[in-house]
Amino acid sequence: MDTRFTTMFGLELPLAGFSRSPGVVAEVSAAGGLGVLAATPYVPDELDRHLTWIAERCDGAPFGVDLLVPPGPMTGVASGPLPVTHVDFVRELLAEHGIASPGLGQLGHGATTTTSLSADGVEALLDVTFAHRPALVANALGPAPARLIERAHAEDVPVAALIGSSTHARRQLDLGVDVLVAQGTEAGGHTGSIATMVLTPEIVDLAGDVPVLAAGGIADGRQLAASLALGAAGAWCGSVWLASEEDITPTTVKRRLLRAGSGDTVRSTARTGKPARQLRSAWHDAWESADAPPVLPMNQQLLLSKDAWALIEAAAEEGRDVDELTSFFVGQVVGRMTEIRPTRQIVHDMVAGCVEAIGGLGGRR
Amino acid sequence: MDTRFTTMFGLELPLAGFSRSPGVVAEVSAAGGLGVLAATPYVPDELDRHLTWIAERCDGAPFGVDLLVPPGPMTGVASGPLPVTHVDFVRELLAEHGIASPGLGQLGHGATTTTSLSADGVEALLDVTFAHRPALVANALGPAPARLIERAHAEDVPVAALIGSSTHARRQLDLGVDVLVAQGTEAGGHTGSIATMVLTPEIVDLAGDVPVLAAGGIADGRQLAASLALGAAGAWCGSVWLASEEDITPTTVKRRLLRAGSGDTVRSTARTGKPARQLRSAWHDAWESADAPPVLPMNQQLLLSKDAWALIEAAAEEGRDVDELTSFFVGQVVGRMTEIRPTRQIVHDMVAGCVEAIGGLGGRR
Repeated sequence: MDTRFTTMFGLELPLAGFSRSPGVVAEVSAAGGLGVLAATPYVPDELDRHLTWIAERCDGAPFGVDLLVPPGPMTGVASGPLPVTHVDFVRELLAEHGIASPGLGQLGHGATTTTSLSADGVEALLDVTFAHRPALVANALGPAPARLIERAHAEDVPVAALIGSSTHARRQLDLGVDVLVAQGTEAGGHTGSIATMVLTPEIVDLAGDVPVLAAGGIADGRQLAASLALGAAGAWCGSVWLASEEDITPTTVKRRLLRAGSGDTVRSTARTGKPARQLRSAWHDAWESADAPPVLPMNQQLLLSKDAWALIEAAAEEGRDVDELTSFFVGQVVGRMTEIRPTRQIVHDMVAGCVEAIGGLGGRR
Repeated sequence: MDTRFTTMFGLELPLAGFSRSPGVVAEVSAAGGLGVLAATPYVPDELDRHLTWIAERCDGAPFGVDLLVPPGPMTGVASGPLPVTHVDFVRELLAEHGIASPGLGQLGHGATTTTSLSADGVEALLDVTFAHRPALVANALGPAPARLIERAHAEDVPVAALIGSSTHARRQLDLGVDVLVAQGTEAGGHTGSIATMVLTPEIVDLAGDVPVLAAGGIADGRQLAASLALGAAGAWCGSVWLASEEDITPTTVKRRLLRAGSGDTVRSTARTGKPARQLRSAWHDAWESADAPPVLPMNQQLLLSKDAWALIEAAAEEGRDVDELTSFFVGQVVGRMTEIRPTRQIVHDMVAGCVEAIGGLGGRR
């Protein structure tokens, strides 16, 4: 399957696998796709260790790194205590589910968040990233800033940008990005409102020679074939790896993912301050209720959530029943997750299904 | 292009064209697809006249009729005046845009709405429909009720049901429907939350031998090819015809559709009382504002909107600038509507694009 994307990166498969799990990234790359590690969950030392391990496992196969670089001039992370009303609201919510939360809002679980959102933190992640000679750097949220693109191009590293609309795509093309990832509303994590089926051909038509990957709603071979039919040069998959053996998501969360249906996600600002698709839980219901305080700006809501989630996951690990609160960033494809497979198997199943779907076109169905 | 859908209805093309415009329905059927007329905008006499005209134009080619049959026992339409708070709210909103609305809520513009939602009205539409020997009857909203399916099968007419989730699909299969239309969230009109890319293969996998049409986000050949790659036996298209010469939507509305982007729709309850995708306008912003009264149940909100829209469209026809209020039910594909084409041309372009997209799979892109 040769596309402009596979040619650009010397890949066997038109498939990028985005994950925070080093094992997933290494396996996708080793299988002939392009594994892309989410850097922002990590502090620089961790990132360095993970990229070293991935490079060894890949044995020369290309891999990428996804960052989250703020678009504007760095103004630092909002510091100081979180608003009392919000901390109290979360404390009550947790208490309703049997979780005590003394010290909420000052738990210090925001270390990696602070790293990825502060000026010095991002520069340190970039230094580590480029030292490992990735095949690609990507920007996960909002426009890839000019200085990221300049630095990457100075080091001969192509840049991918995730976009959810034509307006964003045009801006990125003007800035000189090398790959566009057209991410539909069905995707997990931060995402826009336009569906992959509509967004992909729209972006392909304005991207000219720049390869476009389709993202959102792609977890099986038919969906990969559909992406190619829409004119994409490949697919960018994130959620599907959550049901892999190599994924590091806690078992308690994975169990909930395996039970969820495709209608059980919500695109909500309640976890990070910006619209992100995730498994709907009592957390989202509470923030949508009439007596909820307004969601905070990104940095603050993220810090508040991060503290809360550390407590929720700790309670789950202790075997307490906090299923109603449990959530994770995941796309609508969660409905098809019914078993945990090795990453390599997921890739193989997807490719075999894609070949079969393409072969079946023109035949009876 | 043979699929289970084309074989079932003796079609040349795996394409159903749903429209309230008789000219669109006749042209889609004459071009080798299956035109499906929305019956609910009409009183029985009008429906009878339109179906007679369509049958003559089609010259024996099959066509379908889409009804909106309430699922439960008929309880009649809520009668009596609409709540004063709601009428006043709409009156103020219209006044802000220079539209006076004496008599709002009692304008009598609800005649066809009343027909399609009352027991006698629906039975009368069914009588007219079956008298014209349609190739298919479809149910647009909610589960097709058992009595519709029984009557259709007694008259040897296959039944299609539009569904937005696995739960709905299973219920319809149990009731014995003959075609499932898996409608994604990007579709215009009443629709669910799951995207076409995710919903289609999910429904295909549980439908067994029952053909599944993909709906939502399908307006060009690549999207038709993608639907087939997802395992669908064809596509069900509605929005794309709004930009056809044969469509009866007022020119003032069509002008706004041609200018809109794919991000300019909203899935809102503010027009019918149930979530329906439509062009976002000042109407939707107002109903989302903090001082808006709660949206009414379906029948009442529909009657209120219908009166308001009669006034908005009348003002537009008079050449007054009410663009900010203008709206219509349309999917996210509205972003690709840039010109008005004959229906026949739209069909031909879609099929040619589909053939090209399928031919290009496996090649470089």
